[in-house]
Amino acid sequence: MAFPPDATLADAGEFGLIAALTDLFDQGEHVLIGPGDDAAVLRVKTGHVVVSTDLMVEGRHFRRDWASAADVGHRAAAQNLSDINAMGGRATSLTIGLAAPADLPVQWALDFARGFAEECALVGASIVGGDLTRADQVVIAVTVIGACTQPPVVRSGAQPGDVLAIVGRQGWAAGGLAVLGRGFRSPRVLVEAYRRPEPPYDAGQVAAEAGATSMIDISDGLLADAGHVADASGVAIDVHRGAFEIPEPLQAVGAALGDDPLQFILGGGDDHALLATFPDVASVPTGWAVVGAVAEGSGVTVDGSAYDGPTGWTHF
Amino acid sequence: MAFPPDATLADAGEFGLIAALTDLFDQGEHVLIGPGDDAAVLRVKTGHVVVSTDLMVEGRHFRRDWASAADVGHRAAAQNLSDINAMGGRATSLTIGLAAPADLPVQWALDFARGFAEECALVGASIVGGDLTRADQVVIAVTVIGACTQPPVVRSGAQPGDVLAIVGRQGWAAGGLAVLGRGFRSPRVLVEAYRRPEPPYDAGQVAAEAGATSMIDISDGLLADAGHVADASGVAIDVHRGAFEIPEPLQAVGAALGDDPLQFILGGGDDHALLATFPDVASVPTGWAVVGAVAEGSGVTVDGSAYDGPTGWTHF
Repeated sequence: MAFPPDATLADAGEFGLIAALTDLFDQGEHVLIGPGDDAAVLRVKTGHVVVSTDLMVEGRHFRRDWASAADVGHRAAAQNLSDINAMGGRATSLTIGLAAPADLPVQWALDFARGFAEECALVGASIVGGDLTRADQVVIAVTVIGACTQPPVVRSGAQPGDVLAIVGRQGWAAGGLAVLGRGFRSPRVLVEAYRRPEPPYDAGQVAAEAGATSMIDISDGLLADAGHVADASGVAIDVHRGAFEIPEPLQAVGAALGDDPLQFILGGGDDHALLATFPDVASVPTGWAVVGAVAEGSGVTVDGSAYDGPTGWTHF
Repeated sequence: MAFPPDATLADAGEFGLIAALTDLFDQGEHVLIGPGDDAAVLRVKTGHVVVSTDLMVEGRHFRRDWASAADVGHRAAAQNLSDINAMGGRATSLTIGLAAPADLPVQWALDFARGFAEECALVGASIVGGDLTRADQVVIAVTVIGACTQPPVVRSGAQPGDVLAIVGRQGWAAGGLAVLGRGFRSPRVLVEAYRRPEPPYDAGQVAAEAGATSMIDISDGLLADAGHVADASGVAIDVHRGAFEIPEPLQAVGAALGDDPLQFILGGGDDHALLATFPDVASVPTGWAVVGAVAEGSGVTVDGSAYDGPTGWTHF
């Protein structure tokens, strides 16, 4: 279905827009019935099904002037796919709820959906259902369903003596966000990292198979999420400052903004790196970097001391 | 965790509130890991998994002055559980996303969650995950996952010669909404029907086992949803006006507001009655009423003619 270039959601109407959106979504073989009925129908094999849900609110989790609709689609999908990755699973199916003002351009919704679908295609997941309604601001609600071929890796399994390791870019998106917040658009590589994170989608399952004892995706910030693992596992986690090489663009941003670039790495979310614990260094898979250690006790320290920089994201 | 009576979401903080909310949610035996990790983990058996998602927006789908928080919770759960019912399935697991202003009373969120959980308990479903974030208005995003023990009943299976049948109250919630919209609070039974629908949760699976050829839950309105079945199945559906007995409270409201009470029945959603087609009258299960017939052709008629009243709900 073609819409005039300046058409809004109100012009398109609910059913016309839903039809145009669902046309964008290819269905995998496990999808027996896709969008359009009271519910989608999936074929599943006996085992563990993993489920996660996330909200993104305009003005809080994204700004339409800081990222294109396709970027927002990529990010919305990435943060959900990453939750399944962090369990050691593989995402198979997602639903999208889109609440939006009636004057939202149809093109924004279509570009958002296209970006979302492209990100899902990276892991072979299908968009099997959704809902569309009017609201004062854009709210995106995503639920993702995945499968695990081995027992899921939870936050509560870290043991004293384990090593802490990370995979994926960390601090890049936070650096990009800091740049955008000051009205700049460069370094481009950081702004792009914020707009389209590149989570290490294959790493979760590999870590699970390698015997990771706990795992989490970094969305609140490295120290904050390490804190969730420490709390859930009843252990202390020490992060080693020297384990991080500060990438050149982060050094540049730190210098330009007068910020310690390490705070992007220790406090930033949005890259969806994975943080996991392993019984020993030998079991840490290729591509992961050892960045700390687990001990008896509680809480998170940096080189043995409390960290006094910003440590993450508070939702209220 | 106890909060002061006038605490807001901002006072409670994200993690404190999440802890208080998840305390309200009992987990079924199929839930291996409930809320609190990157994803919930469910044990499933090989078969058909059904998934549906819905958004509810304050001011559009509910008003805080027209229904209590617990009522909104019941309604939010009911409309999602009903989608699984309409496939002939049984809901097992739900996620809730709650976006809300920082000044929302904590008590509202807790009462909402309690109402939601009570409704889910009616069918034995568990609330396995969620997300909580700040927004300008309350937006509730629910995803429901269910199981079917027989092939799901879709919208597209109606055949010429089938009979159309309905189960559950129809028009009551629309009557209650009309009353509230004029500033009244009675007839109480209709207002209550709007605030807490009573979907016929056991009827979907029974209809599937009885050989229903198509099924839908009435959320857009009887004629609008019959239209969805007609379109998906490539058939014509005629609804028989004389098949409906107008309940006394709807007659009273019609008289008081000067409306034809039949329009509540033909145009109203929100009761989450089920509409289904069966091969013949003999296969219609007990409790269902035959209200029309399926023929070759397209579109929906009432006693053979186009209906000129309001026929349903438009989202944009």
